[in-house]
Amino acid sequence: MFPPKEFLTRIAGVQSRMQAGGFAALLLTQDADIRYLTGFLTRFWESPTRPWYLVLPAQGLPIAVIPSIGAALMGQSIVQDIRTWSAPDYHDDGVSLVIETLREVAGSGKIGTPHGIESHLRMPLADWARLSDALEIVGDDAILRAARMIKTPAEIDAIRAACAVAGRAFERAPEIAKAGTPLSEVFRQFQILCLQEGADWVPYLAGGAGADGYADVISPANDTPLSQGDILMLDTGVIKNGYFSDFDRNFAVGAPKADAERAYETLLNAMQAGEAALKPGNTAADVFHAMDRICTGGAGGQSAGRLGHGLGLQLTEGLSFIAGDHTVLEAGMVITLEPGVSVSGGAGLMVHEDDYVITDTGWERLSPAPPEQLVRLSL
Amino acid sequence: MFPPKEFLTRIAGVQSRMQAGGFAALLLTQDADIRYLTGFLTRFWESPTRPWYLVLPAQGLPIAVIPSIGAALMGQSIVQDIRTWSAPDYHDDGVSLVIETLREVAGSGKIGTPHGIESHLRMPLADWARLSDALEIVGDDAILRAARMIKTPAEIDAIRAACAVAGRAFERAPEIAKAGTPLSEVFRQFQILCLQEGADWVPYLAGGAGADGYADVISPANDTPLSQGDILMLDTGVIKNGYFSDFDRNFAVGAPKADAERAYETLLNAMQAGEAALKPGNTAADVFHAMDRICTGGAGGQSAGRLGHGLGLQLTEGLSFIAGDHTVLEAGMVITLEPGVSVSGGAGLMVHEDDYVITDTGWERLSPAPPEQLVRLSL
Repeated sequence: MFPPKEFLTRIAGVQSRMQAGGFAALLLTQDADIRYLTGFLTRFWESPTRPWYLVLPAQGLPIAVIPSIGAALMGQSIVQDIRTWSAPDYHDDGVSLVIETLREVAGSGKIGTPHGIESHLRMPLADWARLSDALEIVGDDAILRAARMIKTPAEIDAIRAACAVAGRAFERAPEIAKAGTPLSEVFRQFQILCLQEGADWVPYLAGGAGADGYADVISPANDTPLSQGDILMLDTGVIKNGYFSDFDRNFAVGAPKADAERAYETLLNAMQAGEAALKPGNTAADVFHAMDRICTGGAGGQSAGRLGHGLGLQLTEGLSFIAGDHTVLEAGMVITLEPGVSVSGGAGLMVHEDDYVITDTGWERLSPAPPEQLVRLSL
Repeated sequence: MFPPKEFLTRIAGVQSRMQAGGFAALLLTQDADIRYLTGFLTRFWESPTRPWYLVLPAQGLPIAVIPSIGAALMGQSIVQDIRTWSAPDYHDDGVSLVIETLREVAGSGKIGTPHGIESHLRMPLADWARLSDALEIVGDDAILRAARMIKTPAEIDAIRAACAVAGRAFERAPEIAKAGTPLSEVFRQFQILCLQEGADWVPYLAGGAGADGYADVISPANDTPLSQGDILMLDTGVIKNGYFSDFDRNFAVGAPKADAERAYETLLNAMQAGEAALKPGNTAADVFHAMDRICTGGAGGQSAGRLGHGLGLQLTEGLSFIAGDHTVLEAGMVITLEPGVSVSGGAGLMVHEDDYVITDTGWERLSPAPPEQLVRLSL
């Protein structure tokens, strides 16, 4: 869905960082990194069996070293050099082929692979040991992470489209959630709304409900029916053209407790404080502190561990709004603000989240403006 | 949704393998392994930022070493010893805590972690290097893989329920797919059907359409409308209570080409040949050869690389039906048969897939019996 030049631009951006860091090749094993550079989009990553490798030279197009099952789809991407094996192969699941490719591309030059926060090794550790015996592979100095953090206009458009889908689904939530509806049914119907509104798929939905908010923000649904006075929170990540939205909405089943209403007001105040700090030159920590002052009076944190994060090819990626993240904000970064507050003296918590892109002068909203008061669901 | 004793049984099973292998502790980092032993079920694994650790001693309950954001949910599991840190922490993202826990549990005993096929290291490689500097961690001799391969009755019931959901959605596919419907709309509406029929969520959908079948089986949808004579294939993995279905169905838009009809007949013959070989004592390779004789005349393989696989907590897990897999089939294994054949001299391919559990005497079908002829979609 993106033109080839989009990927050529991304590749050139990563390669210029590679040259600055003296890398002859990068080895990539993860969906988001491989997709970033090639557009290779498949839900088949859900199957853990086969490893997939992309080798990026310091110049020229990347080389795919992949199971033959993916050759036809990879052939539609900008990648021209596609090397395959019949996977799974219990004796040599692409290891020799990727070693040979890395030797050919890098010679005796430096080979890097993502090894810092958020990166995983999407291949068996035993195969990694074989690779490491044959070749020295070091960390990539967070090149991929840094490159992916600044979005292209096409990426921002894709995230905006995903946010619009989720926004329309949240608008319609009162159609499917009211007193008596089991939370599991709310979750199921909400995913249907996301699809009806144009999501390609719905990789993420979490939430909770209770009179004092909820116990956490990562739980799946149980079958408890919504009750009068409950605060319902739904937090979704929908995919549109390979890019995520990630924001939530809180609803009240009839009239909420005063504590919950106050908590919602505090959350919106924290959002405004975060927005005021959201501009190029400020750091992620600045934004954290601006929100944390409102949420906790400056206590410095809470159980979620952060008050927002980067967003794009993954539900969460790049910077974190924590006291320890000194990333300087730049135009093109797409982020979520996600403050949380405790309700009724810690009986529960409430969290609000919205999505933004940093601009030259501040920010632009990607998710719709949140309701000024808790939206009421029917009794 | 499973009673505590289900997890105690699973833990005891893994621990008896640990004792046989002389392991003092296992370190687990992946969703499926952690969920297998604890029931910790969340879609939050979609966020790659935070690592999660489970330490299983040779005796007693597992210890969770996890980000504080997950403490409340883990607290609902059988795990009693939950050690948390505020993640992300750029200086020490749980590494010290997991080292300390492993030392406490294992002493100078052997520590294993999954490192073979299908396992990934779901933590940053740089943190793994710190762990490995502090402690010797070896492969787990495929203990987790072997334990998970034989399903408990509760697991089989969960997979059966997931298969029933997908089966009902496939029955209704003619409601949402006909000549003129763009493939992207078919995919979107089919996911809605899966949710309406009771899926908790729909992690996987791939497919394709064409007069000679499709180019591969892992592609996402494009916007091309279905045309008269097309073969439409939808392959879905739905989740119900944390367990997957994984099977596909082929449909014909009006009257298919004779080649496609013959291909479907060949696929059903290959299924029958696979079923005949599906019994305790036979190997995965026996099943592969039985199907491959029908699909290719015994050529030994094709682009997909295998003709089926294990199924359960993951879309694909455990054994593979390939010539090189000599796993002996046992009652309780849940598998898919997934033969493929080329159509019209290689212009495309067609694949059929169904799900089974191995019983003491043979097999029981988990997905509904496939139609004897290609189901026709409206023009």
